[in-house]
Parts: sequence; C-alpha cells; structure tokens
Amino acid sequence: MRMIRSGLLMLLLGLLPAHAQTAAPVSGGPVDPAKLQDLVLANRVLTDLNVIDGFGHVSMRHPTDPNRYLMGRSVAPALVVADDIMEYDLDSNPVDARGRNSFLERFIHGEIYKARPDVMAIVHTHSPGVIPFSVSSVPLRPVFHLGAFLSPSVPVFEIRNPAGQSNMLVSNPALGQSLASVLGDRNVALMRGHGSVVVAATIPMAVFRAHYSNVNAQLQMQAMSLGGPVTFMDPEESQKTLGVIDQIHGRAWDLWKRAALEKMPK
Amino acid sequence: MRMIRSGLLMLLLGLLPAHAQTAAPVSGGPVDPAKLQDLVLANRVLTDLNVIDGFGHVSMRHPTDPNRYLMGRSVAPALVVADDIMEYDLDSNPVDARGRNSFLERFIHGEIYKARPDVMAIVHTHSPGVIPFSVSSVPLRPVFHLGAFLSPSVPVFEIRNPAGQSNMLVSNPALGQSLASVLGDRNVALMRGHGSVVVAATIPMAVFRAHYSNVNAQLQMQAMSLGGPVTFMDPEESQKTLGVIDQIHGRAWDLWKRAALEKMPK
Amino acid sequence: MRMIRSGLLMLLLGLLPAHAQTAAPVSGGPVDPAKLQDLVLANRVLTDLNVIDGFGHVSMRHPTDPNRYLMGRSVAPALVVADDIMEYDLDSNPVDARGRNSFLERFIHGEIYKARPDVMAIVHTHSPGVIPFSVSSVPLRPVFHLGAFLSPSVPVFEIRNPAGQSNMLVSNPALGQSLASVLGDRNVALMRGHGSVVVAATIPMAVFRAHYSNVNAQLQMQAMSLGGPVTFMDPEESQKTLGVIDQIHGRAWDLWKRAALEKMPK
Amino acid sequence: MRMIRSGLLMLLLGLLPAHAQTAAPVSGGPVDPAKLQDLVLANRVLTDLNVIDGFGHVSMRHPTDPNRYLMGRSVAPALVVADDIMEYDLDSNPVDARGRNSFLERFIHGEIYKARPDVMAIVHTHSPGVIPFSVSSVPLRPVFHLGAFLSPSVPVFEIRNPAGQSNMLVSNPALGQSLASVLGDRNVALMRGHGSVVVAATIPMAVFRAHYSNVNAQLQMQAMSLGGPVTFMDPEESQKTLGVIDQIHGRAWDLWKRAALEKMPK
Repeated sequence: MRMIRSGLLMLLLGLLPAHAQTAAPVSGGPVDPAKLQDLVLANRVLTDLNVIDGFGHVSMRHPTDPNRYLMGRSVAPALVVADDIMEYDLDSNPVDARGRNSFLERFIHGEIYKARPDVMAIVHTHSPGVIPFSVSSVPLRPVFHLGAFLSPSVPVFEIRNPAGQSNMLVSNPALGQSLASVLGDRNVALMRGHGSVVVAATIPMAVFRAHYSNVNAQLQMQAMSLGGPVTFMDPEESQKTLGVIDQIHGRAWDLWKRAALEKMPK
Repeated sequence: MRMIRSGLLMLLLGLLPAHAQTAAPVSGGPVDPAKLQDLVLANRVLTDLNVIDGFGHVSMRHPTDPNRYLMGRSVAPALVVADDIMEYDLDSNPVDARGRNSFLERFIHGEIYKARPDVMAIVHTHSPGVIPFSVSSVPLRPVFHLGAFLSPSVPVFEIRNPAGQSNMLVSNPALGQSLASVLGDRNVALMRGHGSVVVAATIPMAVFRAHYSNVNAQLQMQAMSLGGPVTFMDPEESQKTLGVIDQIHGRAWDLWKRAALEKMPK
Repeated sequence: MRMIRSGLLMLLLGLLPAHAQTAAPVSGGPVDPAKLQDLVLANRVLTDLNVIDGFGHVSMRHPTDPNRYLMGRSVAPALVVADDIMEYDLDSNPVDARGRNSFLERFIHGEIYKARPDVMAIVHTHSPGVIPFSVSSVPLRPVFHLGAFLSPSVPVFEIRNPAGQSNMLVSNPALGQSLASVLGDRNVALMRGHGSVVVAATIPMAVFRAHYSNVNAQLQMQAMSLGGPVTFMDPEESQKTLGVIDQIHGRAWDLWKRAALEKMPK
Repeated sequence: MRMIRSGLLMLLLGLLPAHAQTAAPVSGGPVDPAKLQDLVLANRVLTDLNVIDGFGHVSMRHPTDPNRYLMGRSVAPALVVADDIMEYDLDSNPVDARGRNSFLERFIHGEIYKARPDVMAIVHTHSPGVIPFSVSSVPLRPVFHLGAFLSPSVPVFEIRNPAGQSNMLVSNPALGQSLASVLGDRNVALMRGHGSVVVAATIPMAVFRAHYSNVNAQLQMQAMSLGGPVTFMDPEESQKTLGVIDQIHGRAWDLWKRAALEKMPK
C-alpha cells in the first residue's frame, strides 16, 4: 500500500514542473517511539563498544514503510537523541530536514536498503579491528563461533574500482550501488582504507555483528601472530552457528542497552 | 546422606509411570546467602576483568549436596542477582526453573562436576587472550608464576571430534562428557574457536585462574612476538608455585569483590 | 598594525641600554575567553584521547597578534585552567610569567609559528602509536581516510643531526628551527625516540590530526603484522580526502569538547 | 646515630637468652604523615597506571632511620590506607606487626635497601609490558627519552641460578641478596617469569620509573614488530636525559597523585 501511494506520488510529481520535482518525499508515517529509542540507543551502544567514535552511523528501515529509512543527523553518534533522527527515502533524500544536516555517506544506507529487502538495519563503522583487513591481502574470516556471520566471506569494497582517485566517501547513489553490489547477499563488507558496513534484519543483530566483526578481527590478528597454522570456522559450522546467534544475541543487547540507558541524560 | 536420599529418590522414581520420571529433581537444600552472594559477585568480577562479556558463565557446586550445582539463568553475567541463581542436578536438569531460562551450554558444568569430584566451581569464558591459542597449533603454556596452574598442559577440545560439523555449542550431555574427558585432571581446557573452561576447588580460585589464563595468554603472545626463544615455567617450578597461589589468591579476590560490591545497586 | 607596533617597539628597544632589552615582550592584547577556553579544553581532550599524558603540550597563535602565541604553564595538560595560559613572543619569551614556569620545549612552538604563517595551533605529543615509527626505518603512512593529512610524507626529526648526543629536548631556538625545517610544509613530523609535532590552522584540526596520527599508526602496525602487502592511501586520494576532513572534523571536536566540559570542575 | 643505637641494641641482644633475640626490632621513630601519605598514594597510583594489580608492592626507606623501611601489609595495593603501613628492619623483620600479615617477598626490599644506600623507594611489579622481556632473549632497552633510566642495561634475575626449581618467590634474605646483586647499581631489574623491581631516590621517581618501564617495553615491542631496524637511545643520550627526567617527573606525579586523592574515601 505504501508502494502504491509512493507510485502515485511519483506519477503526480511527473505532472509537475521540473523544479517542483525536488520536493521532499512524503513521510512513511509515525514510528513507534520504542523503536526510535532502540535506534538512538544503538548509536550510543556502538560508541561504548568502540565500534564507532565521532564518526560512523547506524540506520533502520522504516518499520511500516519499506521505502523509507531512519538515521541520526550529522552529529557524533554518542550525542544522538530522538529529535536527531531523520527520515529518508531510498534515494537518501530527507523527508523533512528541519535544518538538520545529513551524513555525506547516507547513500550507503539507501542503496543497500534498495538492493536488500531482507535488511532492516545497517551500521557503517571505522572500527579499529577491521580496518587492517581492509588494506591487507589477508581476508577477514570467522575465527570463533560468535563471528560465524562472517561466513562465507567478507568482500572488500575498493572504491578505486568505481571512482578512481576519490575522496574515499560513498557520497552519491552510484557509489552506494557499487558498494551494495560488492556486499551482495553477505552480512559484512569491508571498505578499503575506510571501515566496514554491516547489515542485519534487526537493530540488535546489526549491533551484534558490528561488534563481533571487530572482536573477531582482533582475535584473528592475534592468532595469526602466533605463527602456526590457524583453524578457521568451517562454512558448515558457521551456517549451523547462525541459529545459535539468533537465539542468544538478545542477551548481549539487553546488557548493552541497559548500560547505555543508565548513562543517558534524563 | 544426600547421596542416600538421592538414591532413594531414584528408586522411588523407578516405581512411577514413565512420564513422571521427567519431574524436576529435588533441591539439595537451602544455600548460605553469603555463598550465593559470592557466586553473584563472581559473575560481575569476571565481567569487570573482561574475562566474560554478554556471554560466558560461572557455576558452583551446591555447598551441601555434591549432586547439585548452582548457576545464573540465561542472562548477561553482569546483570545476575541472587534471584537469578538456578539449581541443577548433574544431568543439568533445573530443580525449580520458575520460568527462568537455562544456558544452552549448562552441560559443560554438570558433566565436569560428575567427572571431577574435586571441582567446586567452574567458569566458561570467551576471553580474548585464550581464543587465539584455541585455534592455533601453538599451545598455551605458563609464562609467569601466576599462570602456574596452566601446567602441565592446556588441552584443546576440538568439538569436531565428537560432533563433526556442529553449531559449536556444548549443548548436550554427550558433548559435556567429551569436554570433561579432554579436560581430564587439569585446571583449564581451551575450546577450539570458542573459549575456555576453568575449574577450581573454590569460586575465588576459579575466578583467579580464569583471569590469569587470559593474562598469561596475552603475555605469551607478546613474548613470542619478540622473536627470540621464550623461557616457560618448568613443570616443577609450576608445581611448587601452586602453593604460593593458594596462599595469595585471596588478596586479588578481596580487591575484585570489593570493587564489584561498590558498583552493585543497593 | 600589530606588526607595525611591534616594529616600533623593537626600534625603541634598540635605543635603550642593553640590559633593558631583556625586558619581557609586550602583550598581543586580550584574548576572546571562548578561544582561551578552547585551548584549555584541547589540553584535556588530548589527555582523554591518550594522545598526551603528564607530558606533551598544545598551543595556539594569538588570535589578534601573529607574533605571539599562547600555551599552558609547565603543568600536566589535564590540570590546565585558563589562568595557566601564558603568552609568548615567537622567540618564546613569556610576556608576563607571574611566577609561572614555562615548558623547556616551548621553542618547538615559537619556531614553527615563525616558519609557518599558516599554522595557528600546534600539538607536541609522546603518543604511543607514533613513537615506534619514530625509531623504525618503516615510515608512518596514511592507511585510512582519516589519516589523509599524513600525506605526502611524515618526516622524522633526528635530533642527533643538529645536536649530536643530547638530552633529547628541543630546548633552544636553534633546535626549534631545525625541527621546523624538517617539518617543512607538512602537517606532522615525528621526533626520534620522543614523539611528534602536529600543526594545523585551528585547534580542533590540530587535535584531530594528533589523535588520528596515533590511530593511523596503530592501524598501520596491525595491518603490517598480518604479513601480506598493505594498500596505503594514494597521494591523490589523500589530497582529495583533506576536503572531507575539513568538512567533518568538527563533529569529533564537538563530541570531545562536550565530554571534557562535563568533567571540568565548575 | 641510628646506626650506633642499632649497634648497641644488637650488643644488648647478644647478652640476652636466645629466644629473646627474636624480639621485634625497635622503631626508627615516627614518620611525617605527609610522607606516609605519599607511600599510600603510590600504591593507588601504581594500580591506576596498571603497573600493579592485586599483587605487587611499593616501599620507602624510613625517612629518619636508614635501617628501617616502610611498606603496606599483605593486601591488594589499591586498598592500602595509612594504618596498613608496617615498619621493617633491613632483615625484613616487622617492628610491630599488630596482627598484620607481611608480604612473602619483603626481602626484595630489605636486601636492596642494605645493598644500595642511595635507594629510598622500591617498587616490585608484575607489569604486563616487562614480563615478555623477562622471558625472552631480547633485552629491554630505552627506546624513547622517558625510558632513559633503563640505560645502561636492564639485567634479568633468573631465580633458577640461586634457587634451582623454586616457587618463584624472593621469599628469604639469600634470594633477596641475589636479586640485589643482579640489580647492581642499575635502576631496574627484570625477574624471569615474574616481573620487575624498580628503585629510586624518591617515591615519585620510583613510580615514574615503574610506569615508564612498562610504557617503554610496550613501545619497544611495537617498534620491533614493524620489522625494520630500531634506533635505541644511545648511552650518552640516556645519561644526559636523566637530568631532564629529574627536572620534569614531578609534573606527572602531581597529576597522578591528584587523581588518586580524588578517588580516596574521605
């Protein structure tokens, strides 16, 4: 129904003079405050976990309109409050900016939501564990059970392929599409000399995967530094372990969320 | 006497119709609140020491019934309070779940308590120092005196041996028995691509060993990274040092316990 | 106009007897308290980021007199308050010491301000990431986009060249000039067996560069430890990325500043 | 004069029946509370700096009696208060134990105070940076100016030499003398598979050296991991830099002390 309404809107826009076509997209409708709160908390949890710092972002697909997504304005994630959450269409146009600035790299989110209907939450990080793998010929691989979602492989997005010598940012739809295409149907892609993008069907799972990508990377570096051969998770083991992670990841989210809530200004 | 009562119970159960045999086991009796408090605090201390995070667990054998053990419900250890402590028989059946969920991997605990009458406390960790050794051909070895309990050796439990391609969890009695058999009479076993299990005769000693396993692992990695030959603790030195650790480990426990108590909600 | 006044002063001083020429330089005038506050906060932010500890310093050029600069007295940066900020001429003579002690290495600042009219803020660090590169034949290079300011190169100041066997301190004008000459028109220079000096056109950018020099160094060490070839930022990519950093670095500064403010005694 | 009094006491004791010779030594007299407070704070500062944890200790020579020294009772250093400070003679007999337990390794302190009249404060650590060097053939060397006190060399005490297969503790006078002899006239000695001992003429300098030994060790490990040749401090540079450290180390002590004071219970 939203898609029909959206189609009608596009039709109507087609009848308007060109300058009016730049009108902001309509909203996907109000969002359950508890869900907005989870998005706010995800920003803070990821900061507490050192997965993001002054940079990096997390978004969620609009709960009732698959053609919209929600993400904080351009501010350090640790400072995000509910009023900072902006709504975008999948071309990453803001619905109602109200003077709030958007992230230059919001196209990471919009284009992945377009390409991956299963994805409901996305994290973009510069997390310290994964960056070394983004610039190395050594691939990031699942080394322990909580990193099983890194199977079957973690591709590296080389922005030189679509953009040549660039400013390194995924700052337009074409680059977002290119990144989404490298990601394919996987859960995590590294971005060379930049960071990672992590996707999931829920916010808690996206946060879980962003954190344990970083942990797994550090464990893999240390295991390799010992000098002997390393036993990685087998693809079949990883596949079976995904069910376990589905079942248990809420335990970590509950812990992280509570800690973040306690630190929020009342 | 408890064993006799337990034997009587089994006899009586044998006379009952089959469906009644699934009745919950009887309790080993009330537990001294100070001992329960130590178990609660061990959960928090291990979190403060970064030995466990949202996952991992610690248990103690029932103080007055060797056929029962006590462990928190399935919640992040940092959140455990006294009311979360559940009682299990050694087959890891809960005595009185009262709607509380059990850890999928409680069989680690039950089967080790069965196999090792000397063990009164068990910690299961995903601690970051030990995981690299769990996937490497390089063995974890005692590199300083506070790691003496790692002597004579730290075996690695490869779950592929008993389970083939699995979901990596020790989630049934057979896998717990297999792990207990790999552990043998040692203090620590690593679990490939997963973490470790640490046993001791008291909670403070189990916490000490879990923490210094992690510390020793990190020191060993760094010593090896220097490139020269490394002098490990000699087995005889380790044996003699165990007495020292017996004598001094309470000093660390007192410190950790006090810090955890100060942070507990009143 | 300040330069004319300063020139007049020098002329007048030339007419005075020699001993009077050692009189303290005149002040460049009052400084906007908000700008002073940013300098105070930079001291605390850099401590919070582990870029500096009990040692290290940060200065700013006088906002209205290019021939003066401002820096805390010789005290641990985390303790600096507004009243600790001292004013210096570019020969690093204090304007009005009022009994406050000066850093032995203030000549780092004065001589760079002389040589680099574009530089408005300077940080001197002993940050742990950069020191290993200061003593290694391996150069520090930009490994991710937030380290782009390390392009085209990070020179290493070897104090043995100007000073032979010394006490390692840049403790006079000649050594300051030598360091400034090694720095040239770049943003960062390492000091062998000592630390780094970081320059920028604003305090927030100097803090940003000091922090991400340290982060980039740690990422580069880890990437190299993986053993495979490492892809560094291309000089052209780095050049283009500088514009991005200009645009976004305030987001990190806002976060750091707020955290430092919250911790300051009222 | 104290030495004369002490000599007289020994003479008198010689006249007494044997069992009386085990009487506790007499006190060196009251100690300035500000000096005691510095010793208490050194315990807490070293904990805050992660140089010591539940173990490790710091002592000072009695300010007015060179044949006595002062050290906390056997408790985690972070918990030490003034009433925990015990007085010992240089044979490490307590003056007035009042039921307080002594560290098993107090002989480290007593025997070094005997052998080194210049030493007024001693720290014994298990600090994580130095232990890898204690078990490696690679020597710890000064890699940056704040580690200059590691020159001319850092010996490693191998307890197997005096004790064979032992419990690793310096738990009697003979082992303390052996350690003191390995230390010689240097500032730091490592203890194989155990930790380090650090000496100085004041408490602030002992704390400074204990901390920067640990920092230097970590920097050296990282510099070596880069793979290229490493430039260490030259002995002559180190010698000249000692004067700088004398001049500036109080700046760090002031910072650390203030932070520790703020956290002490009132």
